Amino acid sequence: MAHYTVLEFVDGRLRMLDQRRLPQEMTYFETEDYRQAADAIREMVVRGAPAIGVAAAYAMALAALHSQARDSAALLGELEQAAGVLRAARPTAVNLFWAVERIMECIKNTPDGPVADLGQAVLREAGAIAAENAWLCKQIGLNALELVPEQATFIHHCNTGALATVEYGTALGIISTAHAHGKKVFAYVDETRPRLQGARLTAWELQQLGIPHAVIVDGASGYIMKSRHVDLAVVGCDRVAANGDTANKIGTYNLAIVARAHGVPFYVAAPTSSIDLAIASGEQIEIEERSASEVVRVGAEQITPQGTQVANPAFDVTPAEYITAFVTEAGIARPPFGESLAEMVEKAKDLTRNV
Amino acid sequence: MAHYTVLEFVDGRLRMLDQRRLPQEMTYFETEDYRQAADAIREMVVRGAPAIGVAAAYAMALAALHSQARDSAALLGELEQAAGVLRAARPTAVNLFWAVERIMECIKNTPDGPVADLGQAVLREAGAIAAENAWLCKQIGLNALELVPEQATFIHHCNTGALATVEYGTALGIISTAHAHGKKVFAYVDETRPRLQGARLTAWELQQLGIPHAVIVDGASGYIMKSRHVDLAVVGCDRVAANGDTANKIGTYNLAIVARAHGVPFYVAAPTSSIDLAIASGEQIEIEERSASEVVRVGAEQITPQGTQVANPAFDVTPAEYITAFVTEAGIARPPFGESLAEMVEKAKDLTRNV
Repeated sequence: MAHYTVLEFVDGRLRMLDQRRLPQEMTYFETEDYRQAADAIREMVVRGAPAIGVAAAYAMALAALHSQARDSAALLGELEQAAGVLRAARPTAVNLFWAVERIMECIKNTPDGPVADLGQAVLREAGAIAAENAWLCKQIGLNALELVPEQATFIHHCNTGALATVEYGTALGIISTAHAHGKKVFAYVDETRPRLQGARLTAWELQQLGIPHAVIVDGASGYIMKSRHVDLAVVGCDRVAANGDTANKIGTYNLAIVARAHGVPFYVAAPTSSIDLAIASGEQIEIEERSASEVVRVGAEQITPQGTQVANPAFDVTPAEYITAFVTEAGIARPPFGESLAEMVEKAKDLTRNV
Repeated sequence: MAHYTVLEFVDGRLRMLDQRRLPQEMTYFETEDYRQAADAIREMVVRGAPAIGVAAAYAMALAALHSQARDSAALLGELEQAAGVLRAARPTAVNLFWAVERIMECIKNTPDGPVADLGQAVLREAGAIAAENAWLCKQIGLNALELVPEQATFIHHCNTGALATVEYGTALGIISTAHAHGKKVFAYVDETRPRLQGARLTAWELQQLGIPHAVIVDGASGYIMKSRHVDLAVVGCDRVAANGDTANKIGTYNLAIVARAHGVPFYVAAPTSSIDLAIASGEQIEIEERSASEVVRVGAEQITPQGTQVANPAFDVTPAEYITAFVTEAGIARPPFGESLAEMVEKAKDLTRNV
């Protein structure tokens, strides 16, 4: 458990830590209206693909529980409408679509009954999505324990903590689980330009968890590895190809190259849901180019001259050869990844059936 | 020549582009008072070691030309005082000490005469320092021409332009000289966290020079090299050891590692005055750790949580093995650098005697 609540559903209300105000303020957004929950997703009160999925599932529960529908057909109609509103909140968030779809499947598969019972069924399904997500992150942290020395200095990129996943986190969960198991942990935190998720969010989470750390600029990782000591690099992933090529936040590839040059093992925390066996290699992964404004301004501060050209790829692809291993909820995948990743995906299916 | 004046001495006044206001405003700071010139150096109206040296030399000329001293002994006393004020402006700037010392040597070696004549001698010496500096930068740009293909995509770190050197620049001079010689040039500009000299100053200089470019975050260099095309990396240097290990702005080492991984040649623009044959390797170079405030804030914008720990090394050391060649005013030094760098230092002494 994180030492702070990212998202919870209490007394018919959805309550979320307002991540737009972090790290300066710790305030909560609360609502019992699914439309307001959709607005909160759009406005990034909550961010991180898994956390968005959980928020959307609970937003569907809000729609069901506070419905005035008099029969199940009317409720289904209202939920279809809510699903549409939520899908429109963040048009590219895969976990959002997946979670909304799963809730709709659930309601369609629930035997007809009183509206209140159907509402409870939706709430149970949203709770199951949240619980599976927490379980999965916890397993990644536990599975990684064997990779982490008793005294471990990590280097970490972007934000992969509870803020992004509701509980535990993925790569950050590896760090916090090792800490919770009594290992002596220190983390260097890449600030992660342009959006500074490391400096803003990861530093805040580590502070809350009482884990010693130091924020560094992204260009300092080589100097830190060479002049101090780093035992392992841990990062998350947005999408992993069948061969192990991994798309993640821009700067991940540089960190992997620099880690290799210093003999520092490079681990990717990867829920099997992020492993896409349908794509053979990273060459098939399209990289989003985002607005120049992310680079030319920090908050209200304009950095570059007016009219300067900017290249702002949001992600990069780290070739599999730079990755020491993937840590999934089903175990650790080592090279050759073509085999081990497929094995993890199969194993995870069995595990999920038994949760 | 730059298309903008960084620093000039006209009609008994020192006039400097106010770099604190760049890139938002192009305003000039003017003074005939050496104390105000010292303040301007302290407050970073002018920055970059060579530019600071030239500014300090002209500040000594201000002291001499506007002196009310009635004889040469009184003038010498006033200049000693001015030298003290200027030395205190930036206590770690080697070029500042060197330039002030050279002016003091000049005045001591000038035959006794009217105060006005001695003032003119100081002004001539300051002009000589500026001219030698411009000549040296120009030679670096010309010497590098053979390394630059007709269509050349560069990647560049920090700021090494006329803003830092008064004329031409060092690594940026390699880019602008190639452009001026009709080569088709494009430059990727590392923004260079934490102080953003790339985003603020290099982008501005390239814009003034009409050279096509794109600013990138420092973590994007690997992605850019892999997915687009980069012909060569060029950087400046703060200090080069006898074996070629090179101290430069933090992030240079990461760029060198990433360039090596992509087979991109990595060139260091190095005035021979930066080559320190007295130190055998980079291990003897001490790295300045600067204030956390550079990392936790951008302008008025606070990024990290209050109280976050930060590691902020200002420089890193790139081992010689990552460097393809050094471009000096005396020619190109290739491996083994132990021999070629010493040769360049000797050759430069001969050249300077003939300038």
